[in-house]
Amino acid sequence: MVVDTQNEKPRHRIQLDKVGVKDLKTFLITERSGLRHHLIPRVEFTIDLPADLKGVHMSRLVESMTEVISEEFSVYNSVEELQIRILDALSEKHSYSRGEIKFEFEFGYAIKTPASKQRTWEVCDVTASTVKEEGKPHTHEVKVDVIGNTVCPHCMANNHGLTHMQRAVGSLRVIGVTEDIPTFGDMIEVIEKSFSSRTYSLLKLEDEMLVTKQMHDNPLFVEDVCRNILQNSKEKFEALTLEMFAEARSLESIHKHDVIAQGRIVTHGE
Amino acid sequence: MVVDTQNEKPRHRIQLDKVGVKDLKTFLITERSGLRHHLIPRVEFTIDLPADLKGVHMSRLVESMTEVISEEFSVYNSVEELQIRILDALSEKHSYSRGEIKFEFEFGYAIKTPASKQRTWEVCDVTASTVKEEGKPHTHEVKVDVIGNTVCPHCMANNHGLTHMQRAVGSLRVIGVTEDIPTFGDMIEVIEKSFSSRTYSLLKLEDEMLVTKQMHDNPLFVEDVCRNILQNSKEKFEALTLEMFAEARSLESIHKHDVIAQGRIVTHGE
Amino acid sequence: MVVDTQNEKPRHRIQLDKVGVKDLKTFLITERSGLRHHLIPRVEFTIDLPADLKGVHMSRLVESMTEVISEEFSVYNSVEELQIRILDALSEKHSYSRGEIKFEFEFGYAIKTPASKQRTWEVCDVTASTVKEEGKPHTHEVKVDVIGNTVCPHCMANNHGLTHMQRAVGSLRVIGVTEDIPTFGDMIEVIEKSFSSRTYSLLKLEDEMLVTKQMHDNPLFVEDVCRNILQNSKEKFEALTLEMFAEARSLESIHKHDVIAQGRIVTHGE
Amino acid sequence: MVVDTQNEKPRHRIQLDKVGVKDLKTFLITERSGLRHHLIPRVEFTIDLPADLKGVHMSRLVESMTEVISEEFSVYNSVEELQIRILDALSEKHSYSRGEIKFEFEFGYAIKTPASKQRTWEVCDVTASTVKEEGKPHTHEVKVDVIGNTVCPHCMANNHGLTHMQRAVGSLRVIGVTEDIPTFGDMIEVIEKSFSSRTYSLLKLEDEMLVTKQMHDNPLFVEDVCRNILQNSKEKFEALTLEMFAEARSLESIHKHDVIAQGRIVTHGE
Repeated sequence: MVVDTQNEKPRHRIQLDKVGVKDLKTFLITERSGLRHHLIPRVEFTIDLPADLKGVHMSRLVESMTEVISEEFSVYNSVEELQIRILDALSEKHSYSRGEIKFEFEFGYAIKTPASKQRTWEVCDVTASTVKEEGKPHTHEVKVDVIGNTVCPHCMANNHGLTHMQRAVGSLRVIGVTEDIPTFGDMIEVIEKSFSSRTYSLLKLEDEMLVTKQMHDNPLFVEDVCRNILQNSKEKFEALTLEMFAEARSLESIHKHDVIAQGRIVTHGE
Repeated sequence: MVVDTQNEKPRHRIQLDKVGVKDLKTFLITERSGLRHHLIPRVEFTIDLPADLKGVHMSRLVESMTEVISEEFSVYNSVEELQIRILDALSEKHSYSRGEIKFEFEFGYAIKTPASKQRTWEVCDVTASTVKEEGKPHTHEVKVDVIGNTVCPHCMANNHGLTHMQRAVGSLRVIGVTEDIPTFGDMIEVIEKSFSSRTYSLLKLEDEMLVTKQMHDNPLFVEDVCRNILQNSKEKFEALTLEMFAEARSLESIHKHDVIAQGRIVTHGE
Repeated sequence: MVVDTQNEKPRHRIQLDKVGVKDLKTFLITERSGLRHHLIPRVEFTIDLPADLKGVHMSRLVESMTEVISEEFSVYNSVEELQIRILDALSEKHSYSRGEIKFEFEFGYAIKTPASKQRTWEVCDVTASTVKEEGKPHTHEVKVDVIGNTVCPHCMANNHGLTHMQRAVGSLRVIGVTEDIPTFGDMIEVIEKSFSSRTYSLLKLEDEMLVTKQMHDNPLFVEDVCRNILQNSKEKFEALTLEMFAEARSLESIHKHDVIAQGRIVTHGE
Repeated sequence: MVVDTQNEKPRHRIQLDKVGVKDLKTFLITERSGLRHHLIPRVEFTIDLPADLKGVHMSRLVESMTEVISEEFSVYNSVEELQIRILDALSEKHSYSRGEIKFEFEFGYAIKTPASKQRTWEVCDVTASTVKEEGKPHTHEVKVDVIGNTVCPHCMANNHGLTHMQRAVGSLRVIGVTEDIPTFGDMIEVIEKSFSSRTYSLLKLEDEMLVTKQMHDNPLFVEDVCRNILQNSKEKFEALTLEMFAEARSLESIHKHDVIAQGRIVTHGE
């Protein structure tokens, strides 16, 4: 006879917004357009808890995820599709009004160096989550962080062309329903073209000279990079309905601290 | 003749919500009730930027902070008072509609061990921020994270009293106007009494036995700890008007991942 | 005409031990016994620099790695084999006396839950490096960190069987030549059996009860876990010639800090 | 009647090198030349454990530290003096052959901006440890990490003066006996003058122009910065007997990864 402590009355009858697991690491495979991606996400998976129940059956959350990942190992077209399946599987094991599953992972992609045209491998950080709420369509939130650089236009204008430049991080976060979520690749592209220049794992001298030239030809504040991400997103995703947040962060080479700029924009599809 | 690039028109006329410095480290002193605290905060200090201005004069943010900290080095009664002064000082150097300054730092305090009554030093994490917005009173957000523990009541009930226990982290975050913000000490107290037991840097054998006994007498899910923090806050701060968020996180000893619970409560003062 | 700054004389003629790239992220595939692993390692790749040369041609390091990873994408039997190939490829592009390449990555594996026998996915941290030095065989250093738990035997003995337990991390680091390096799986196995109990991503109630019972039957100090790892390694790898280092760290449930134990043992093969 | 589990025989008679506490946070005050520093160190405090003893009495380590910090709260001239006192106090509570105590903390200092001569507050990371071993003098290891920048001389030489620059971190680690350990301030000074330029929390436009000019006049590889730290240390500390290690790390603005250089030098006093 099992004592079902979770279903007892709690001492304080307070509704909780999110209860579940955090920093659980697992691994999974997605495939889209013939490209297979193996991911090792850090998972946060939570549901709400009514005021009159003491606890969540935590193992059912992990069980739902493990079953979905294990049974149909390689067929998912996207992280969003996989997350919807996990939330649906949980619905059959545990009641909830609002469930949310979030994956944080590293995502690899190949590009060409700008002058020598060699293949180079790049890796960026992605956070992707799906929310399932009673009577609403699934919504997703996807955030991509990509490294580029900034070049100070103010110093350049006042210092006979001499200026300082530095590594920068651009972030784009989008919120929307399933059919409106862009690919990671499109989000990466939008961010990369918003910097003074893209960055590369590999640069031969001819590439390095070209990148440095491009940087000097395109001096940008962190504010400019943030607005570029917002504007480029607006143009690229104008057919979609999305709420979009951008951040640019510049690891100042003349300071010990960073500078940041954050903004928000909304597209309304057709 | 200085070229004022920041005041030029931006290429994309998009308003930005937050522009400023991040991960700037500084140091400062507060004194309250005769207790002096030296803090080395990590600072985020941002203002909004209108759509028709290209950039923020970043150095004015740092200058405002540095001047306030340097000129009246030891007189501040609280972090909130210091942050208000910095935001006010910035108003005289740079126009903005909404400014926000956030400090993240470690905060030390002394307690007694539970049985042997020896003095022990404890340190917790604090995040404190102040927002100044046109036509509104200053609002503050303070978050305190304290380490305690949880003991699983479900396993205990089903396993002849045998159960698992683990380190846990309790967080309380409050939002309110200046006169309603509680002290760090009161927030720490509310969190510490919400766990299965408090934790201590120093425990002699008699203390360790007492703590272990208390843990077994007070088995709590992470959901219970979260609700305890909310309930204890409600009772302790009932005379204040605050929006309060609690999180409990348990570093499960039988899993590689954590479990969490989050909730929210509001008090409306008298 | 390229100016080869790297080959100029440095201002201070001091030999440097390690020069190269750090925190470079890339991705690669290994396959052993039919099991394919996709890894996204964080790379540190360095060589020594003689006193009379100003700099290292950094791009040749990245180029060597990128070419080896790209050309024969899926054929490597092990991380060590891949690292040897990269060091060999570099030898043809850049002279060095000592070269070292290190990968830090997450490694996933499947196990069964202890009572319900469900499949569960686990992830641990691995650091693997290879050193190539003139006139010496390649040596490798592999470190695996796995999460388990500890149960205090001292408190149990003094407190009528009541005690505290907590999450713990066990680490095993081995140094040896190519033919003596064990698999990650064998290293994980050695660490997991050294704890009071293993931990699992998924535990149904019957599993949780069994794990908790095992923990109480096997109380271990962090010192015991460290010695268990060393003893189990000695027995498991007695046919190999290895220098082995173990660490156990216990995230004390009654304290805010951790406790650790570190030791070293050597096996000399047959 | 206390059962002294720690003094029992262990299952595996293996000597352990380090057993103790880690990531314990405490706070303390030092005063030198009239300057008072409040520190919140993260502490690692370990001793060795003979093969025939099961465990260390962990609470005696914390107790020794807490008593020394509490009793004579503000009289220590240096972190090294404080650490010697704690190791000596432990000797009276617990036998050991080798004891080591390490503090990691943030250290603040004031400088002037280069052109406008305003006061600015800077913070760097320090790690300081003391070893007490039977029949040997106390030895100390102190590491200081300071942020500066690098400017690529190779790109500048090939690209008509155009080049890339970036934030960099310089580290100096010294090992020696008590009378040979330099002050944190002297170590910071040695590192700061080894970069293409120093960095500052606050820079007005005239300062920013000067710093940018200095950077362009002083292009340095990460190898150059590392050698500068070693050479400057050798000159500054030639009267002392020290083993010294330097690292320079450059957060490349044209790459997503860092580049590093490491070296070692020894001074032998008079």
